[in-house]
Amino acid sequence: MRAAFFHGKDTPLTLKEIENSSNLAKDHVYIRLKNAAINHHELWMMKEQSESMPGGVILGSDGSGIIEAAQAEDDQYLIGKEVVINPSVGWGNNPAVQAHSFSILGYPAHGTFSDYISISKKQVFEKPEHLSFEEAAAVPLAGLTAYRALFTKARLRKGEKVLITGIGGGVALWAMQFALAFEARVFVTSGSQEKLEKALAMGASGTFNYKDENWVDKITKEAGGFDVIIDSAGGPQFNALLEMAYPGARVVIYGRTAGMIPDISPKTLFWKQLSLFGTTMGTTDEFLSMLDFVHKHQLKPIIDSTFPLDNINDAFNKMDEGKQFGKIVLSIS
Amino acid sequence: MRAAFFHGKDTPLTLKEIENSSNLAKDHVYIRLKNAAINHHELWMMKEQSESMPGGVILGSDGSGIIEAAQAEDDQYLIGKEVVINPSVGWGNNPAVQAHSFSILGYPAHGTFSDYISISKKQVFEKPEHLSFEEAAAVPLAGLTAYRALFTKARLRKGEKVLITGIGGGVALWAMQFALAFEARVFVTSGSQEKLEKALAMGASGTFNYKDENWVDKITKEAGGFDVIIDSAGGPQFNALLEMAYPGARVVIYGRTAGMIPDISPKTLFWKQLSLFGTTMGTTDEFLSMLDFVHKHQLKPIIDSTFPLDNINDAFNKMDEGKQFGKIVLSIS
Repeated sequence: MRAAFFHGKDTPLTLKEIENSSNLAKDHVYIRLKNAAINHHELWMMKEQSESMPGGVILGSDGSGIIEAAQAEDDQYLIGKEVVINPSVGWGNNPAVQAHSFSILGYPAHGTFSDYISISKKQVFEKPEHLSFEEAAAVPLAGLTAYRALFTKARLRKGEKVLITGIGGGVALWAMQFALAFEARVFVTSGSQEKLEKALAMGASGTFNYKDENWVDKITKEAGGFDVIIDSAGGPQFNALLEMAYPGARVVIYGRTAGMIPDISPKTLFWKQLSLFGTTMGTTDEFLSMLDFVHKHQLKPIIDSTFPLDNINDAFNKMDEGKQFGKIVLSIS
Repeated sequence: MRAAFFHGKDTPLTLKEIENSSNLAKDHVYIRLKNAAINHHELWMMKEQSESMPGGVILGSDGSGIIEAAQAEDDQYLIGKEVVINPSVGWGNNPAVQAHSFSILGYPAHGTFSDYISISKKQVFEKPEHLSFEEAAAVPLAGLTAYRALFTKARLRKGEKVLITGIGGGVALWAMQFALAFEARVFVTSGSQEKLEKALAMGASGTFNYKDENWVDKITKEAGGFDVIIDSAGGPQFNALLEMAYPGARVVIYGRTAGMIPDISPKTLFWKQLSLFGTTMGTTDEFLSMLDFVHKHQLKPIIDSTFPLDNINDAFNKMDEGKQFGKIVLSIS
């Protein structure tokens, strides 16, 4: 089978032919992967991960496929099931925060950039039937992160005004689709006019280009303020987000594309009674609720483009340019 | 009657003799004040308030006294009641955040630095019977702020580890007393060894002097980390607090004695699933719950010192020096 190995930072992934597993660990299933999807955290790892990995690791958190084998006698009925993988591994018992045992599928455990994966059946869920394998692979990590951000952390209520920054990213787009399905009003930011137009076509109530000099004034004028803000960036503009927040607003951050946040005003925080939540991934319960929500509202992911597994480095180059609108998916089999 | 008027920033308060009110507004009561207490927000106002106030305003948020008159026919039974005043005026209907109508007693409405106050009966509550007037005046603003921070915002649970910064301030001390009564473990910081020793005598499990060069290492070594952090300061040390927070911790900020917060790491926020809450004052329900809590646990405020109303500027000078441990109270009648 083919697998894309990561050997340390600043080197491209290496596609290798390796032997299929013949022994499955306890309660594991063996999945022939149909599709995978790439995520920012893999790109961060490829830029920052300095730990040495003599044998290399197969990256990849998102995947969909068909179960071809199951270790346990009682699990043989799973064979042939069309599934999607929960990339949140070893969360633990506290819904508020992941345990020390937590990891994201793909490091240190081998991930989905491969023809096959052997994984605990606890990580595997039925593919929502209205989605193709390609679409299903675009759901897990981004959908889970967006779901926890919007519902568990911000506790979004119907009719509220939501600002989502950096529209075009996988989490931002799921957050937008979830919020719209939940009957909230969604406003978005981006540095790309093209992305803003696409978001408008999807149902955004207003769009703002943060490269405009007076985008903050423009938002305040046109939107007034926001009950909920979902931010992927941090950085110097974060403080502007706090100014746009309505009193009592909830601000959720799940990314760091713009780096450290300088100069937060305590007075803004306490006088406006703001709540700031950091969030990443989610629990198994949240993963299930998210799949239910996607199915109930018949939501389909926005897919930017699909690359064959053999061209995985092209897929990451595209992500690094930041021009994608939606998930970048890999076609495996 | 005497009253201490504020006429604009950088001027001391002026004690004047004015006429007693003869007409009470609808549903108001007339209280002969026994004690008041001073608060940091008055000090901020005396340093920063640039709005002009031709007639001046009587500052003062905290007060206790005896009702001498009531406007409504049905309220005559209130006469003679020993009461404490809720300084949270016009909070509105949303418990999450104060309405635009909100103000803190003492500006723009005349406050408690006076022999008498005329105030809506909705702001007035029975003095907890185990407290003297002097003690009761040290409860309202600080107790309400601490109660909301610890219970409504951080949702403290029994047995959790709480870090309270700047011990010695009114809110910090109430937060410590409430947390101890709630069977949490309390750790405190201060720049004063004397204050730390007093906190230790009150039941703190550990104390840390933030003037020590390696106080952060010391905390990490001795306390491990914290479930809840209650901060009065902001400023450059705030980021260190986030590092000391356990994953899933709740960090509440209610003050700004150290100014703007530089350099918050989004990765720390999201990977540790931190929650940050700004908070100030509270609702009428919270005020009542706080009084109940104080009564149930028979808590008494820590009073640093008591000044006669005539020497109110000395009281503020003492606060400005930052050497107090506990509330600075005014004795009125």
